[in-house]
Amino acid sequence: MIEPLEELLAALSRLPGIGRRSAERIAFFLLAKPEEGKRLAAALAGLDRITRCPQCGNFATDGPCAICRDPKREGTTICVVARPWEIPHLEKTGEYRGRYHVLGGLVSPGQGIGPEDLAVESLVERVKQEAIREVILALEPKLEGDLTAMYLLRALKPLGVAVSQLAHGIPVGRDLESADELTLGRALKGRTPL
Amino acid sequence: MIEPLEELLAALSRLPGIGRRSAERIAFFLLAKPEEGKRLAAALAGLDRITRCPQCGNFATDGPCAICRDPKREGTTICVVARPWEIPHLEKTGEYRGRYHVLGGLVSPGQGIGPEDLAVESLVERVKQEAIREVILALEPKLEGDLTAMYLLRALKPLGVAVSQLAHGIPVGRDLESADELTLGRALKGRTPL
Repeated sequence: MIEPLEELLAALSRLPGIGRRSAERIAFFLLAKPEEGKRLAAALAGLDRITRCPQCGNFATDGPCAICRDPKREGTTICVVARPWEIPHLEKTGEYRGRYHVLGGLVSPGQGIGPEDLAVESLVERVKQEAIREVILALEPKLEGDLTAMYLLRALKPLGVAVSQLAHGIPVGRDLESADELTLGRALKGRTPL
Repeated sequence: MIEPLEELLAALSRLPGIGRRSAERIAFFLLAKPEEGKRLAAALAGLDRITRCPQCGNFATDGPCAICRDPKREGTTICVVARPWEIPHLEKTGEYRGRYHVLGGLVSPGQGIGPEDLAVESLVERVKQEAIREVILALEPKLEGDLTAMYLLRALKPLGVAVSQLAHGIPVGRDLESADELTLGRALKGRTPL
C-alpha cells in the first residue's frame, strides 16, 4: 500500500478501540470524502487551544473554565473528580450546581502515584480561601479511588469542612441479581430511610 | 463541554463505526497524548498527496502506481476491481502477479450508475493496446457485481481476450474485503472462465 495511506492506517490504529479493520474502513471513508478529513484535521488542530482551568483543572480555552466563571454556580461546594472528562457526565445529571476540582489522577501505589502527584494542595487551599462548606468525592469505588478518598478525608477533616462521597448502590433500572456482591453490600450499608 | 472538544467529538462521530462513546474515548486519549493527535493530523494532511494511477486507477502518489511501474509484473493479465482499496487485499494473497484495473464502482440501476459512469472504455483500450490475454473479474458476487460482470463480458469477448471471474469461495453477500487471505487466494486460483 502507498506510504500516505500506510501512515494514516498506522495513526488510526493507535487510537483506542480502533483495530486494523476499523482503521481501513475509516481511511477509505476519508479518501472517498476528503472534506471529512479536513474537518477532522481542523478539529485536531483545535486541541492546541485547550488548556486547563487555573482554578479547578477542568478543560478551558482561556483562563478559568466556564463553570468557575459562572456566577450562578453555588460557591460553597466542591465536587472532586480524578479527570476533567468526568465533569460533563456529572453535569448531565442536572443534580449539581457547585464547582469542581480535578485531581489529575488517583493515588496508586502500584504505579508510584502518591498524593503529592495530585492537585491536593490546591484543593486544600481552595477549601480554606473560598469558605467551602462541603467537598463531595466523586471517585471510582475501587481500590485506588478508596485510597484517594481516605487520604483526602484526612487532609480535609481538620479544616472543618463536610466531606461526602457519591452513594454506592444498584444502578437505576437494573435487576438486584445483576449487581455484584460488593455493590450489593455497599447498597445495604448505605440504605436510605423511606 | 468546551468548543474545541465539541468540534473534535463531532468530527470523530462522523467516522464510520465511531459512536459518541468511542469518540469521547478517542478525544480524551488525544488530549492525554497530544503527540498522537499531531501524528494523526500529519497523516490526514498526507491524504492530499494521494492521487489515482493514470493507467489503472489504483492509489498512487505521483504518476503511475507502484504496480503499473513494476517491470516484474506479468503484463498480459488484468484483474478488474470496483475500488482501489480492494487491490491490497488481492496483493496479500501472493497469488496474482499481473496488473489491475479499477472501475470506480459497479453498475447499479437503482443508484443510476451505468457502465458509462465506470472506467470501462479505458479497460477496453488497455486490452487492445497492451495485448492482454486474460481479464480476471474480481467483483462482488452480488447483483451489482454480476450485472457489471455481464456487461464487461459482452464488451470484452469480441476482443478475443479470455475473461474469468473469481471462484466461488467468497461468502455470497459479503464484501470482498471481509474474505480472509486464504479464501481470496483460492478464489483467485480457482477462477472460472466465462
